[in-house]
Amino acid sequence: MSELSGGLWRNLIAIQIYGANTGVGKTVASTLLGAHFANRKKSTKYNIHYIKPVSTGPNSDRDDNYVKLYARQPTVSTLFQFDDPVSPHVAARRFGHVPTDGAVLARLNAELDKIAHATPKQQGFKDITFVETAGGVLSPGPSGTPQADIYRPLRLPVVLIGDHRLGGIASTISAAESLLMRGYDIDAVVCFNDDSTFENAQYLQQYFDKLGVGAFQLPWIPKLEGVSREEETHKMKQYYDTNSRQEGASLLGDRIINRHMDRLKNMSTMASRTQSAVWHPFTQHKHIEKADDILVFDSAYGDFFQAKHTAKSDGSLLYPAFDGSASWWTQGLGHGNPQLSLAAAYAAGRYGHVMFAGATHEPALTLAERLLKDIGNPRLTKVFYTDNGSTALEVGIKMGLRAACKRYDWDGSQENIGVLGLKGSYHGDTIGAMDASEPCVYNKKVDWYRGRGYWFDFPTVKMTQGRWVVEPPAGMENDFGSAQSFDSLDEVFDFQSRTSRQKYEQYITSVLDDLVGTQGRKFGTLLMEPIILGAGGMLFVDPLFQRTLVDVVRKYTFSPTSSPIPEDQATWTGLPVVFDEVFTGLYRLGRYTAASFLDVHPDITCNAKLLTGGLLPLSVTVASSSIFEAFWGDEKSDALLHGHSYTAHAIGCHVANTSLSEMDNLHRGAEWRAYKEAWGREAGVERDGRVNSGSEREAASWSMWSKDTVTELSNHARVEGVIALGSVLAVTLKDLAGSGYTSTAALSLRDDLLSGGDEDIRIHSRVLGNVLYLMASMTSKRDDLRAIEKVLLRKLDEVS
Amino acid sequence: MSELSGGLWRNLIAIQIYGANTGVGKTVASTLLGAHFANRKKSTKYNIHYIKPVSTGPNSDRDDNYVKLYARQPTVSTLFQFDDPVSPHVAARRFGHVPTDGAVLARLNAELDKIAHATPKQQGFKDITFVETAGGVLSPGPSGTPQADIYRPLRLPVVLIGDHRLGGIASTISAAESLLMRGYDIDAVVCFNDDSTFENAQYLQQYFDKLGVGAFQLPWIPKLEGVSREEETHKMKQYYDTNSRQEGASLLGDRIINRHMDRLKNMSTMASRTQSAVWHPFTQHKHIEKADDILVFDSAYGDFFQAKHTAKSDGSLLYPAFDGSASWWTQGLGHGNPQLSLAAAYAAGRYGHVMFAGATHEPALTLAERLLKDIGNPRLTKVFYTDNGSTALEVGIKMGLRAACKRYDWDGSQENIGVLGLKGSYHGDTIGAMDASEPCVYNKKVDWYRGRGYWFDFPTVKMTQGRWVVEPPAGMENDFGSAQSFDSLDEVFDFQSRTSRQKYEQYITSVLDDLVGTQGRKFGTLLMEPIILGAGGMLFVDPLFQRTLVDVVRKYTFSPTSSPIPEDQATWTGLPVVFDEVFTGLYRLGRYTAASFLDVHPDITCNAKLLTGGLLPLSVTVASSSIFEAFWGDEKSDALLHGHSYTAHAIGCHVANTSLSEMDNLHRGAEWRAYKEAWGREAGVERDGRVNSGSEREAASWSMWSKDTVTELSNHARVEGVIALGSVLAVTLKDLAGSGYTSTAALSLRDDLLSGGDEDIRIHSRVLGNVLYLMASMTSKRDDLRAIEKVLLRKLDEVS
Repeated sequence: MSELSGGLWRNLIAIQIYGANTGVGKTVASTLLGAHFANRKKSTKYNIHYIKPVSTGPNSDRDDNYVKLYARQPTVSTLFQFDDPVSPHVAARRFGHVPTDGAVLARLNAELDKIAHATPKQQGFKDITFVETAGGVLSPGPSGTPQADIYRPLRLPVVLIGDHRLGGIASTISAAESLLMRGYDIDAVVCFNDDSTFENAQYLQQYFDKLGVGAFQLPWIPKLEGVSREEETHKMKQYYDTNSRQEGASLLGDRIINRHMDRLKNMSTMASRTQSAVWHPFTQHKHIEKADDILVFDSAYGDFFQAKHTAKSDGSLLYPAFDGSASWWTQGLGHGNPQLSLAAAYAAGRYGHVMFAGATHEPALTLAERLLKDIGNPRLTKVFYTDNGSTALEVGIKMGLRAACKRYDWDGSQENIGVLGLKGSYHGDTIGAMDASEPCVYNKKVDWYRGRGYWFDFPTVKMTQGRWVVEPPAGMENDFGSAQSFDSLDEVFDFQSRTSRQKYEQYITSVLDDLVGTQGRKFGTLLMEPIILGAGGMLFVDPLFQRTLVDVVRKYTFSPTSSPIPEDQATWTGLPVVFDEVFTGLYRLGRYTAASFLDVHPDITCNAKLLTGGLLPLSVTVASSSIFEAFWGDEKSDALLHGHSYTAHAIGCHVANTSLSEMDNLHRGAEWRAYKEAWGREAGVERDGRVNSGSEREAASWSMWSKDTVTELSNHARVEGVIALGSVLAVTLKDLAGSGYTSTAALSLRDDLLSGGDEDIRIHSRVLGNVLYLMASMTSKRDDLRAIEKVLLRKLDEVS
Repeated sequence: MSELSGGLWRNLIAIQIYGANTGVGKTVASTLLGAHFANRKKSTKYNIHYIKPVSTGPNSDRDDNYVKLYARQPTVSTLFQFDDPVSPHVAARRFGHVPTDGAVLARLNAELDKIAHATPKQQGFKDITFVETAGGVLSPGPSGTPQADIYRPLRLPVVLIGDHRLGGIASTISAAESLLMRGYDIDAVVCFNDDSTFENAQYLQQYFDKLGVGAFQLPWIPKLEGVSREEETHKMKQYYDTNSRQEGASLLGDRIINRHMDRLKNMSTMASRTQSAVWHPFTQHKHIEKADDILVFDSAYGDFFQAKHTAKSDGSLLYPAFDGSASWWTQGLGHGNPQLSLAAAYAAGRYGHVMFAGATHEPALTLAERLLKDIGNPRLTKVFYTDNGSTALEVGIKMGLRAACKRYDWDGSQENIGVLGLKGSYHGDTIGAMDASEPCVYNKKVDWYRGRGYWFDFPTVKMTQGRWVVEPPAGMENDFGSAQSFDSLDEVFDFQSRTSRQKYEQYITSVLDDLVGTQGRKFGTLLMEPIILGAGGMLFVDPLFQRTLVDVVRKYTFSPTSSPIPEDQATWTGLPVVFDEVFTGLYRLGRYTAASFLDVHPDITCNAKLLTGGLLPLSVTVASSSIFEAFWGDEKSDALLHGHSYTAHAIGCHVANTSLSEMDNLHRGAEWRAYKEAWGREAGVERDGRVNSGSEREAASWSMWSKDTVTELSNHARVEGVIALGSVLAVTLKDLAGSGYTSTAALSLRDDLLSGGDEDIRIHSRVLGNVLYLMASMTSKRDDLRAIEKVLLRKLDEVS
């Protein structure tokens, strides 16, 4: 399992000792710190512990023996010992057994947990543990992964031992930067002051002070060349005895304790301070009954938040919670991904932000070209950048309306030009984007909201009782036909074999005839989220209906005055078609575009969220030439006069390029192929995650969530229906008390998933009315997802 | 001067050799590369050059001698030599002369320039220069600045020499990360393969391949212990002779050349590829006559872009251009600021992005608390996060309208509730923010734009003929009084001594009586940019008028039905007052808030742009409790249902915290105090940037731009008026052909500033109608600004 509690305990201070390089005195520092805490003359006494997770070199030379000898009766342990005095990745390979990163981390965690749970301390006693790493910050662990990456999920506070040698200033600062980039907090940089001519200690102290990282000097280690073993022991005993009581060690000890206490205090006050200072998004603050209802995130890693326990915890004060909303549908490559951190830092270092009007830079150009190529829509030729999904849609709407008004010679400032869309759609929180949605709870009390358009009813798709069902809204069987069921989702998408198209065409045409012909209304854009309407409640729209809607609109005459347009496969006809793929695009549903499920080429497509792999805001509105040309003119006012200050910011674009490359690799990788094969197989064949090689068909529509679980959910007595596509799983619960936004069944299940049980993974999820959904990241581990499914099924059984 | 051309030449490849640490073989690699290029059996021949910018240690051991000996007649040079074999910062200090970072960089640049400009090469000959650094990547230069920071403005491509020793994997990767986060491109990581048991070369090759950075192995250096000098020379000659012709060197050489050629090709195609793939913000594409009208930014550093020459250049293909729009008013702490890169990377590493609804994290909480404290407005209690200025304003408008509609029992969905504002104001590009501005060129062709409000005329402030003048709009002397002139800007802000207040009150009241009383119109919010209306054309509003407007609105009765509100100093009265400080706040005008100039506490304030120091998008809408309470209710729909996916993203918040701390330091620093004193002094006293200590009064309203220059501009025959406040300088040009958006005088001056002259700093600027403005960052250097002012004055003399 990937989840693990972050390393923060009330009565145990655990410090990770990293070195700027090998041979800089990590063990001496650990020993001196141990001796110091053993000798500390303050009210709190400390039990001293020392852990060497991975040790290489002769058993007789083990660091833990050394620490035991000098640091006044600490408990010591070495978790993985390899005798070859080389890097752990070489030593482990030669030894013939390579423990995984997870195994190393789990052993360390177990050891710390044991210390934290040891028999109740005497009053006034605490534990302090020094976890000494091997080599430098990024030295490979046994598996070859840099050890700062292996240990990152615990995120123990770091004491970094600087390098006193020539060149050591550089290696110490670089080591600190590598730690900070991985989200570590550095409690202190320790510099052994050898009074050498290099003056590293003095330099580093100044440098790190300026950076806000405490730097401390410790006295240099006695010269031991040529002295006898006995004399060495004597000298070193004296060294530790003296220096563990002196100012350097004392200040460092205080710093470590103060940082720990500050962190505890901060964790315990953050919820109430947040309640006081922060206005949360999409939140009825009256419903926050107490400050502890606000989750406090210490950090996050992979698919898991590290959240603060609100109840008293014997162990870590933090618990891992699966980020089941993929942090509002953004998460792609895992929290705390060092590759994305580095990408962000590189672009910041190369550009900062450079203004984009009339200018260009490599990350923005590369991203534009990449999107145009990979979206695979021959209509699209131009990329417009903004900051989030809502602004991308505002731009899409402005584009679509302008193109239609220009061609049809409508004056948008005088006439009401609406959008065509689907009931339950939602396109963002700015007022223009809101106006493109029908009246609903989100815009009910937005005083400037004016719904401008018409929103179609549509048949939905869900799995129920193990079958995929396409069903019309209640009472609309005459319009859409009665419910139909299918063996697989691929059959739902097999438009050639579907029989509803004609009925859909007739219905759409008759609605349009009424709106346009009879009522004389004007429309400037067809705007849809393809396949799944997210905020509307994870509604899976019958794709054949969406496809038919596009087809009909493109042939329909919205303005009798306009001359026919040559069908050149690229020029829009009928109305410009805008696809809102902010949520559904970029592999969220398992494919690069959601449009590809419909086999339709929109004239404008909007992307955001996953675009940056889940790191920071950036969005694009990608348009066809025939849209672009509507803004071509002699006047500046003919242009699209839209542009936020940070348009095409280099960090966002470069992170997006890095993320998309990585997602492309996943798309071509074995893991996703296995999911596709599992969904292509007959029901019940997937067992133990094993994939039978060879003959199976890969499903065209597939999910990271297992077919078995989805089927089981669909048969559950409390479940009305379930959908699963790509990384999305959404369960509609039956609610005997009446469904919709007041539903409490989903809220209750959500709370149960988060509170967990003794052995359960805790799951942070979001609900939309009576729908509880879970969303994986692109890098979620299969085993994690299967375990989460089990928890979901069990909690569902318990729902009251 | 801070400006310097980036290091890219057509026929000169300049490579910076960095080492992962000291003693890793930088000089051997330089020599081997030199020998390789000298021996290269391809059509292009290379002249070999070697530069050691800073050398420490005995003169006899100088690296350049070594290179000269073995690398086949290269030209070699050492720019700064210190005999003490310690770090340059110690050696220089002991030597008694410490060259500045600028001096080191300038010498290196001059040397490269000399090579690039050397007598025309024979056909088929090029130059290649290896610039070898000292110690590790971040080893201090003579001044103590890490050398990777010193050399960053040139941004030469890097060959990083890995460390083959135990611990060397870690130090090599960390060194690479330190380079990348400073925006360097690493052409190659070179690993000497010593066939040792450590296997560093193999590991590093795999690691960097995965990262997309080429890694190359070179054969290990012969053992030289105990051999005679003569034998050593023989052995090494043989080593270089053999290995410079073998595959390792050859692949590395190819890589260096290919990267150079790719970079040249990329630079030469970027403009046309951008023209093809990108839809630019706020741009009439028809006005882009040729691709070369698009500026190509290779990178940026400090206040300068590195832009590609469009004309043939003998020297570098790049030129520095002062970022005179502060990248659309965002730039605060300089492009490529390593502290901000590190802050971004830390937050990415610790959190990625974590969802914020119902949750909290340290960077967001810290920022909220900091803003509430530092804004210093006792009304404000809650911080709401969004992504940019436009969305911050949408939220501010939603907040204000809701509070008013709730108190006055208006139904915003049925009635037209407008805003009160100022003519020429602009609040963003989303449709809701647009609706809060009067009809203008920006919204003219936005089909859903519906201006909703009333926008007041107002008197403006400008300096003309050396005097600060407050003048009414043409023909409105009856309403506002005739023009008045003042000795200093501080007098304009001295509301107690001003005589216009009563006239302003009468005018505002009469307008409101007409709107509300006679016409029965309803208004829900007073919305203004305090002091300077940015996008409207850098209009400096008479602050007394703005102050009076707030005072009148707060006492006015907008709904006769509402009961009076107790004046508790925190509850809004009349209408909620929203200040749009997106452009004007956070030190842009020299103060933390622009509201402080008015001595007014708005109920809602919006910040963005400078909030992150100019790195990436983030915005806040900060509100009072009496606004917050309007959204308090039993129903979810009573809440503010707004929230973008990346709300309060950790990177933005942490970068903002880092930036605000740094700007606070600047605010308290000597440089800004000197500006304030200079503006407090009588005219003509500032000379040579020297500050007379002691007695001078600090001006309350001051600028980074010099009083002398501003005065001179105000007397210029072509200038109608000028304003300067904080970092903003705006010059309104006389335009005999008729002013406004069609003005060409400003465009012509803008083009002249960018094209520069032989000795001129080139200046990238933006115009708004007949206004050309320049905007400094918070860290702009006084000397740079003074030099830029000189160019501006000279170009103004030349304007045709």
